[in-house]
Amino acid sequence: MQKGLLVVISGPSGAGKGTICKKLISSHPDIEISVSVTTRKPRETELEGVSYYFTSTEDFENRIKSNDFLEYASVYGNYYGTPKWKVLELVDQGKDVILEIDIQGALKVKEEYPEGVFIFILPPSLQELKKRITSRGTESKEDIIKRMECTYEELSYAFKYDYVVVNDYVEHAVEKIKSIIIAEKNKANRQISLINSIREA
Amino acid sequence: MQKGLLVVISGPSGAGKGTICKKLISSHPDIEISVSVTTRKPRETELEGVSYYFTSTEDFENRIKSNDFLEYASVYGNYYGTPKWKVLELVDQGKDVILEIDIQGALKVKEEYPEGVFIFILPPSLQELKKRITSRGTESKEDIIKRMECTYEELSYAFKYDYVVVNDYVEHAVEKIKSIIIAEKNKANRQISLINSIREA
Repeated sequence: MQKGLLVVISGPSGAGKGTICKKLISSHPDIEISVSVTTRKPRETELEGVSYYFTSTEDFENRIKSNDFLEYASVYGNYYGTPKWKVLELVDQGKDVILEIDIQGALKVKEEYPEGVFIFILPPSLQELKKRITSRGTESKEDIIKRMECTYEELSYAFKYDYVVVNDYVEHAVEKIKSIIIAEKNKANRQISLINSIREA
Repeated sequence: MQKGLLVVISGPSGAGKGTICKKLISSHPDIEISVSVTTRKPRETELEGVSYYFTSTEDFENRIKSNDFLEYASVYGNYYGTPKWKVLELVDQGKDVILEIDIQGALKVKEEYPEGVFIFILPPSLQELKKRITSRGTESKEDIIKRMECTYEELSYAFKYDYVVVNDYVEHAVEKIKSIIIAEKNKANRQISLINSIREA
Protein backbone atom coordinates (compact mmCIF):
# COMPACT_ATOMS: atom_id res chain seq x y z
CA MET A 1 0.00 0.00 0.00
CA GLN A 2 1.18 3.49 -0.83
CA LYS A 3 1.97 5.68 2.18
CA GLY A 4 -0.13 8.79 2.76
CA LEU A 5 1.24 12.31 2.55
CA LEU A 6 1.95 14.78 5.30
CA VAL A 7 0.82 18.07 3.74
CA VAL A 8 2.11 21.08 5.66
CA ILE A 9 0.12 24.26 5.03
CA SER A 10 2.09 27.22 6.27
CA GLY A 11 2.80 30.88 5.65
CA PRO A 12 2.51 34.30 7.26
CA SER A 13 -0.37 35.09 9.58
CA GLY A 14 -3.27 36.58 7.60
CA ALA A 15 -2.43 34.68 4.41
CA GLY A 16 -5.54 32.54 4.89
CA LYS A 17 -4.12 29.16 5.95
CA GLY A 18 -7.07 28.38 8.23
CA THR A 19 -9.79 29.10 5.66
CA ILE A 20 -7.93 27.08 3.03
CA CYS A 21 -7.58 24.08 5.36
CA LYS A 22 -11.27 24.18 6.30
CA LYS A 23 -12.34 24.25 2.62
CA LEU A 24 -9.85 21.54 1.74
CA ILE A 25 -11.17 19.18 4.41
CA SER A 26 -14.82 19.83 3.62
CA SER A 27 -14.25 18.95 -0.04
CA HIS A 28 -11.80 16.13 0.65
CA PRO A 29 -13.30 14.09 3.51
CA ASP A 30 -10.61 11.38 3.36
CA ILE A 31 -8.01 13.80 4.58
CA GLU A 32 -7.03 13.81 8.25
CA ILE A 33 -6.15 16.88 10.27
CA SER A 34 -3.16 16.69 12.55
CA VAL A 35 -4.38 17.35 16.11
CA SER A 36 -1.86 19.08 18.40
CA VAL A 37 -0.96 18.15 21.96
CA THR A 38 -1.18 21.00 24.47
CA THR A 39 -0.74 21.67 28.18
CA ARG A 40 -3.33 24.46 27.99
CA LYS A 41 -6.55 23.80 29.93
CA PRO A 42 -9.45 22.75 27.65
CA ARG A 43 -12.12 25.37 26.97
CA GLU A 44 -15.73 24.39 27.42
CA THR A 45 -16.39 23.60 23.76
CA GLU A 46 -13.12 21.76 23.16
CA LEU A 47 -13.02 17.99 22.83
CA GLU A 48 -10.11 15.69 23.66
CA GLY A 49 -8.60 14.29 20.45
CA VAL A 50 -10.58 16.68 18.23
CA SER A 51 -9.54 20.20 19.24
CA TYR A 52 -6.36 19.04 21.00
CA TYR A 53 -4.89 16.19 22.96
CA PHE A 54 -4.74 17.72 26.46
CA THR A 55 -1.95 16.70 28.79
CA SER A 56 0.14 17.80 31.77
CA THR A 57 3.34 19.84 31.60
CA GLU A 58 5.25 16.92 33.11
CA ASP A 59 3.99 14.50 30.46
CA PHE A 60 4.70 17.01 27.67
CA GLU A 61 8.28 17.54 28.88
CA ASN A 62 8.83 13.78 29.05
CA ARG A 63 7.63 13.50 25.47
CA ILE A 64 10.03 16.25 24.42
CA LYS A 65 12.85 14.19 25.93
CA SER A 66 11.77 11.08 24.03
CA ASN A 67 11.69 13.09 20.76
CA ASP A 68 7.97 12.50 20.45
CA PHE A 69 7.12 15.70 18.55
CA LEU A 70 7.60 16.73 14.94
CA GLU A 71 7.77 20.25 16.40
CA TYR A 72 6.68 22.01 19.57
CA ALA A 73 6.63 25.52 20.96
CA SER A 74 5.85 27.28 24.20
CA VAL A 75 3.30 30.11 23.86
CA TYR A 76 2.27 32.24 26.89
CA GLY A 77 3.45 29.51 29.26
CA ASN A 78 1.65 26.64 27.51
CA TYR A 79 3.19 24.00 25.31
CA TYR A 80 1.80 23.09 21.89
CA GLY A 81 3.25 20.25 19.83
CA THR A 82 2.62 18.04 16.78
CA PRO A 83 2.65 14.38 17.88
CA LYS A 84 5.04 12.45 15.67
CA TRP A 85 3.62 8.99 16.45
CA LYS A 86 0.08 10.02 15.46
CA VAL A 87 1.13 11.57 12.14
CA LEU A 88 3.34 8.60 11.24
CA GLU A 89 0.59 6.12 12.17
CA LEU A 90 -1.93 7.79 9.83
CA VAL A 91 0.59 8.19 7.01
CA ASP A 92 1.60 4.52 7.33
CA GLN A 93 -2.09 3.59 7.01
CA GLY A 94 -2.09 5.40 3.65
CA LYS A 95 -3.97 8.45 4.93
CA ASP A 96 -3.12 12.01 3.94
CA VAL A 97 -2.63 14.31 6.90
CA ILE A 98 -2.93 18.11 6.81
CA LEU A 99 -0.90 20.15 9.25
CA GLU A 100 -1.63 23.89 9.47
CA ILE A 101 1.29 25.59 11.13
CA ASP A 102 3.34 28.79 11.29
CA ILE A 103 6.63 29.15 9.43
CA GLN A 104 8.91 28.42 12.37
CA GLY A 105 7.00 25.21 13.11
CA ALA A 106 6.96 24.13 9.47
CA LEU A 107 10.73 24.45 9.18
CA LYS A 108 11.16 22.25 12.27
CA VAL A 109 8.77 19.65 10.80
CA LYS A 110 10.84 19.70 7.60
CA GLU A 111 13.94 18.77 9.56
CA GLU A 112 12.14 15.86 11.25
CA TYR A 113 10.12 14.71 8.25
CA PRO A 114 11.61 16.00 4.98
CA GLU A 115 9.39 13.68 2.90
CA GLY A 116 6.41 15.88 3.82
CA VAL A 117 4.88 18.22 1.23
CA PHE A 118 5.57 21.79 2.29
CA ILE A 119 3.22 24.45 0.91
CA PHE A 120 3.71 28.15 1.59
CA ILE A 121 0.50 30.19 1.35
CA LEU A 122 1.19 33.63 -0.01
CA PRO A 123 -1.11 36.64 0.26
CA PRO A 124 -1.70 38.17 -3.21
CA SER A 125 0.09 41.34 -2.03
CA LEU A 126 1.35 42.91 1.18
CA GLN A 127 -1.32 45.62 0.76
CA GLU A 128 -4.03 42.95 0.71
CA LEU A 129 -2.50 41.28 3.77
CA LYS A 130 -2.50 44.60 5.64
CA LYS A 131 -6.15 45.09 4.70
CA ARG A 132 -7.06 41.63 5.99
CA ILE A 133 -5.26 42.11 9.28
CA THR A 134 -6.64 45.64 9.75
CA SER A 135 -10.21 44.47 9.05
CA ARG A 136 -10.00 42.00 11.92
CA GLY A 137 -9.84 45.08 14.16
CA THR A 138 -8.00 43.20 16.90
CA GLU A 139 -4.61 44.88 16.57
CA SER A 140 -3.21 48.37 17.10
CA LYS A 141 -1.61 50.40 14.31
CA GLU A 142 1.85 49.77 15.75
CA ASP A 143 1.22 46.05 16.00
CA ILE A 144 0.11 46.01 12.37
CA ILE A 145 3.28 47.81 11.23
CA LYS A 146 5.41 45.40 13.26
CA ARG A 147 3.47 42.50 11.80
CA MET A 148 3.95 43.73 8.23
CA GLU A 149 7.71 44.08 8.75
CA CYS A 150 7.77 40.55 10.12
CA THR A 151 5.78 39.26 7.12
CA TYR A 152 8.19 40.96 4.73
CA GLU A 153 11.02 38.96 6.34
CA GLU A 154 8.96 35.76 6.41
CA LEU A 155 8.40 35.84 2.65
CA SER A 156 12.06 34.96 2.16
CA TYR A 157 11.37 31.57 3.78
CA ALA A 158 9.03 30.67 0.92
CA PHE A 159 12.03 29.27 -0.96
CA LYS A 160 12.51 26.62 1.72
CA TYR A 161 9.13 25.13 0.81
CA ASP A 162 8.27 22.77 -2.04
CA TYR A 163 5.35 24.85 -3.31
CA VAL A 164 4.13 28.43 -3.12
CA VAL A 165 0.40 28.98 -3.56
CA VAL A 166 -1.02 32.50 -3.86
CA ASN A 167 -4.28 32.85 -1.95
CA ASP A 168 -6.03 35.31 -4.27
CA TYR A 169 -9.29 33.36 -4.11
CA VAL A 170 -9.71 30.57 -1.58
CA GLU A 171 -11.30 28.29 -4.20
CA HIS A 172 -8.32 28.72 -6.54
CA ALA A 173 -5.86 28.06 -3.76
CA VAL A 174 -7.73 24.92 -2.66
CA GLU A 175 -7.85 23.59 -6.23
CA LYS A 176 -4.12 24.13 -6.55
CA ILE A 177 -3.45 22.27 -3.31
CA LYS A 178 -5.62 19.38 -4.49
CA SER A 179 -3.55 19.24 -7.67
CA ILE A 180 -0.35 19.28 -5.64
CA ILE A 181 -1.59 16.30 -3.59
CA ILE A 182 -2.45 14.33 -6.76
CA ALA A 183 0.90 15.21 -8.36
CA GLU A 184 2.85 14.25 -5.25
CA LYS A 185 1.15 10.84 -5.16
CA ASN A 186 2.39 10.30 -8.71
CA LYS A 187 5.99 11.22 -8.00
CA ALA A 188 8.33 8.49 -9.22
CA ASN A 189 10.00 8.14 -5.83
CA ARG A 190 6.63 7.43 -4.18
CA GLN A 191 5.79 4.69 -6.70
CA ILE A 192 8.75 2.36 -6.28
CA SER A 193 6.66 -0.51 -4.91
CA LEU A 194 4.07 -0.12 -7.68
CA ILE A 195 6.69 -0.31 -10.43
CA ASN A 196 8.37 -3.29 -8.80
CA SER A 197 5.05 -5.10 -8.44
CA ILE A 198 4.33 -4.63 -12.17
CA ARG A 199 7.79 -5.97 -13.03
CA GLU A 200 7.42 -8.95 -10.73
CA ALA A 201 3.89 -9.89 -11.81
CA MET B 1 6.14 36.56 -16.66
CA GLN B 2 6.41 32.96 -15.55
CA LYS B 3 8.10 30.61 -17.99
CA GLY B 4 6.09 27.78 -19.49
CA LEU B 5 6.80 24.12 -18.83
CA LEU B 6 8.29 21.51 -21.10
CA VAL B 7 6.21 18.42 -20.25
CA VAL B 8 7.80 15.23 -21.53
CA ILE B 9 5.35 12.33 -21.91
CA SER B 10 7.28 9.12 -22.28
CA GLY B 11 7.19 5.41 -21.51
CA PRO B 12 7.20 2.02 -23.18
CA SER B 13 5.51 1.52 -26.52
CA GLY B 14 1.87 0.47 -26.01
CA ALA B 15 1.50 2.33 -22.72
CA GLY B 16 -0.81 4.82 -24.40
CA LYS B 17 1.34 7.97 -24.67
CA GLY B 18 -0.25 9.06 -27.95
CA THR B 19 -3.87 8.75 -26.81
CA ILE B 20 -3.06 10.59 -23.59
CA CYS B 21 -1.39 13.46 -25.44
CA LYS B 22 -4.31 13.81 -27.86
CA LYS B 23 -6.84 13.96 -25.00
CA LEU B 24 -4.64 16.36 -23.07
CA ILE B 25 -4.41 18.79 -25.97
CA SER B 26 -8.10 18.63 -26.82
CA SER B 27 -9.02 19.54 -23.24
CA HIS B 28 -6.18 22.01 -22.76
CA PRO B 29 -6.06 24.15 -25.92
CA ASP B 30 -3.37 26.49 -24.56
CA ILE B 31 -0.82 23.72 -24.64
CA GLU B 32 1.59 23.49 -27.55
CA ILE B 33 2.86 20.27 -29.09
CA SER B 34 6.54 20.04 -29.88
CA VAL B 35 6.87 19.43 -33.63
CA SER B 36 9.87 17.35 -34.67
CA VAL B 37 12.32 18.06 -37.48
CA THR B 38 12.82 15.19 -39.92
CA THR B 39 14.68 14.35 -43.11
CA ARG B 40 11.93 11.92 -44.10
CA LYS B 41 9.93 12.91 -47.17
CA PRO B 42 6.49 14.37 -46.33
CA ARG B 43 3.48 12.13 -46.90
CA GLU B 44 0.55 13.54 -48.81
CA THR B 45 -1.49 14.51 -45.75
CA GLU B 46 1.42 15.95 -43.78
CA LEU B 47 1.86 19.68 -43.35
CA GLU B 48 5.12 21.56 -42.81
CA GLY B 49 5.28 22.85 -39.22
CA VAL B 50 2.27 20.80 -38.13
CA SER B 51 3.21 17.16 -38.70
CA TYR B 52 6.93 17.87 -38.91
CA TYR B 53 9.44 20.44 -40.00
CA PHE B 54 10.88 18.81 -43.13
CA THR B 55 14.48 19.42 -44.05
CA SER B 56 17.48 17.97 -45.88
CA THR B 57 20.02 15.57 -44.43
CA GLU B 58 22.73 18.19 -44.91
CA ASP B 59 20.80 20.82 -42.98
CA PHE B 60 19.96 18.31 -40.22
CA GLU B 61 23.59 17.32 -39.83
CA ASN B 62 24.63 20.97 -39.66
CA ARG B 63 22.09 21.50 -36.90
CA ILE B 64 23.45 18.50 -35.01
CA LYS B 65 26.88 20.14 -35.12
CA SER B 66 25.50 23.42 -33.76
CA ASN B 67 23.80 21.53 -30.90
CA ASP B 68 20.41 22.59 -32.18
CA PHE B 69 18.44 19.57 -30.91
CA LEU B 70 17.21 18.59 -27.48
CA GLU B 71 17.55 15.04 -28.82
CA TYR B 72 17.69 13.34 -32.19
CA ALA B 73 17.78 9.83 -33.56
CA SER B 74 18.21 8.09 -36.87
CA VAL B 75 15.43 5.60 -37.71
CA TYR B 76 15.52 3.54 -40.93
CA GLY B 77 17.93 6.01 -42.52
CA ASN B 78 15.94 9.14 -41.62
CA TYR B 79 16.73 11.65 -38.91
CA TYR B 80 14.16 12.82 -36.37
CA GLY B 81 14.92 15.52 -33.82
CA THR B 82 13.35 17.87 -31.28
CA PRO B 83 14.32 21.46 -32.16
CA LYS B 84 15.76 23.14 -29.10
CA TRP B 85 15.24 26.73 -30.30
CA LYS B 86 11.51 26.19 -30.95
CA VAL B 87 10.85 24.61 -27.55
CA LEU B 88 12.82 27.30 -25.70
CA GLU B 89 11.06 30.08 -27.65
CA LEU B 90 7.60 28.80 -26.64
CA VAL B 91 8.61 28.16 -23.03
CA ASP B 92 10.11 31.66 -22.78
CA GLN B 93 6.78 33.04 -24.01
CA GLY B 94 5.12 31.35 -21.03
CA LYS B 95 3.62 28.51 -23.07
CA ASP B 96 3.51 24.91 -21.93
CA VAL B 97 4.93 22.48 -24.46
CA ILE B 98 4.15 18.76 -24.63
CA LEU B 99 6.74 16.41 -26.04
CA GLU B 100 5.72 12.79 -26.65
CA ILE B 101 8.83 10.70 -26.96
CA ASP B 102 10.35 7.26 -26.33
CA ILE B 103 12.45 6.54 -23.26
CA GLN B 104 15.85 6.90 -24.91
CA GLY B 105 14.84 10.31 -26.31
CA ALA B 106 13.39 11.50 -23.00
CA LEU B 107 16.61 10.72 -21.15
CA LYS B 108 18.58 12.76 -23.70
CA VAL B 109 16.14 15.67 -23.30
CA LYS B 110 16.62 15.46 -19.54
CA GLU B 111 20.36 15.94 -19.97
CA GLU B 112 19.84 19.00 -22.17
CA TYR B 113 16.88 20.48 -20.28
CA PRO B 114 16.67 19.10 -16.73
CA GLU B 115 14.07 21.73 -15.71
CA GLY B 116 11.52 19.89 -17.88
CA VAL B 117 8.76 17.83 -16.27
CA PHE B 118 9.39 14.18 -17.04
CA ILE B 119 6.37 11.87 -16.87
CA PHE B 120 6.63 8.12 -17.38
CA ILE B 121 3.40 6.50 -18.58
CA LEU B 122 3.02 3.04 -17.15
CA PRO B 123 0.69 0.33 -18.44
CA PRO B 124 -1.49 -1.01 -15.60
CA SER B 125 0.21 -4.40 -16.01
CA LEU B 126 2.51 -6.22 -18.41
CA GLN B 127 -0.40 -8.54 -19.25
CA GLU B 128 -2.51 -5.54 -20.27
CA LEU B 129 0.37 -4.16 -22.34
CA LYS B 130 0.74 -7.51 -24.12
CA LYS B 131 -2.98 -7.51 -24.85
CA ARG B 132 -2.82 -3.99 -26.29
CA ILE B 133 0.14 -4.78 -28.52
CA THR B 134 -1.35 -8.11 -29.63
CA SER B 135 -4.68 -6.49 -30.47
CA ARG B 136 -2.98 -4.13 -32.91
CA GLY B 137 -2.28 -7.26 -34.95
CA THR B 138 0.77 -5.70 -36.59
CA GLU B 139 3.46 -7.78 -34.92
CA SER B 140 4.49 -11.43 -34.92
CA LYS B 141 4.50 -13.58 -31.77
CA GLU B 142 8.29 -13.44 -31.61
CA ASP B 143 8.28 -9.67 -31.99
CA ILE B 144 5.76 -9.41 -29.17
CA ILE B 145 7.89 -11.56 -26.86
CA LYS B 146 10.97 -9.49 -27.71
CA ARG B 147 8.96 -6.32 -27.13
CA MET B 148 7.74 -7.52 -23.72
CA GLU B 149 11.29 -8.34 -22.61
CA CYS B 150 12.36 -4.90 -23.71
CA THR B 151 9.47 -3.29 -21.81
CA TYR B 152 10.42 -5.21 -18.68
CA GLU B 153 13.87 -3.63 -18.87
CA GLU B 154 12.44 -0.21 -19.72
CA LEU B 155 10.34 -0.10 -16.55
CA SER B 156 13.52 0.31 -14.52
CA TYR B 157 14.00 3.71 -16.20
CA ALA B 158 10.80 4.99 -14.57
CA PHE B 159 12.87 6.05 -11.56
CA LYS B 160 14.78 8.54 -13.71
CA TYR B 161 11.54 10.46 -14.28
CA ASP B 162 9.84 12.98 -12.01
CA TYR B 163 6.44 11.32 -12.16
CA VAL B 164 4.97 7.92 -12.94
CA VAL B 165 1.37 7.86 -14.15
CA VAL B 166 -0.47 4.56 -14.58
CA ASN B 167 -2.62 4.54 -17.70
CA ASP B 168 -5.48 2.40 -16.39
CA TYR B 169 -8.10 4.72 -17.87
CA VAL B 170 -7.06 7.48 -20.26
CA GLU B 171 -9.31 10.02 -18.50
CA HIS B 172 -7.67 9.30 -15.13
CA ALA B 173 -4.19 9.56 -16.59
CA VAL B 174 -5.03 12.87 -18.30
CA GLU B 175 -6.48 14.32 -15.07
CA LYS B 176 -3.33 13.31 -13.22
CA ILE B 177 -1.12 14.97 -15.82
CA LYS B 178 -3.22 18.15 -15.59
CA SER B 179 -2.70 18.12 -11.82
CA ILE B 180 1.03 17.62 -12.31
CA ILE B 181 1.16 20.67 -14.60
CA ILE B 182 -0.70 22.83 -12.04
CA ALA B 183 1.50 21.57 -9.20
CA GLU B 184 4.69 22.21 -11.17
CA LYS B 185 3.63 25.79 -11.87
CA ASN B 186 3.31 26.28 -8.11
CA LYS B 187 6.72 24.89 -7.25
CA ALA B 188 8.63 27.33 -5.08
CA ASN B 189 11.62 27.40 -7.41
CA ARG B 190 9.39 28.48 -10.33
CA GLN B 191 7.91 31.38 -8.32
CA ILE B 192 11.03 33.30 -7.39
CA SER B 193 10.10 36.36 -9.43
CA LEU B 194 6.54 36.38 -8.02
CA ILE B 195 7.76 36.32 -4.43
CA ASN B 196 10.33 39.01 -5.10
CA SER B 197 7.71 41.21 -6.80
CA ILE B 198 5.44 40.95 -3.74
CA ARG B 199 8.33 41.85 -1.45
CA GLU B 200 9.36 44.80 -3.60
CA ALA B 201 5.86 46.21 -4.06
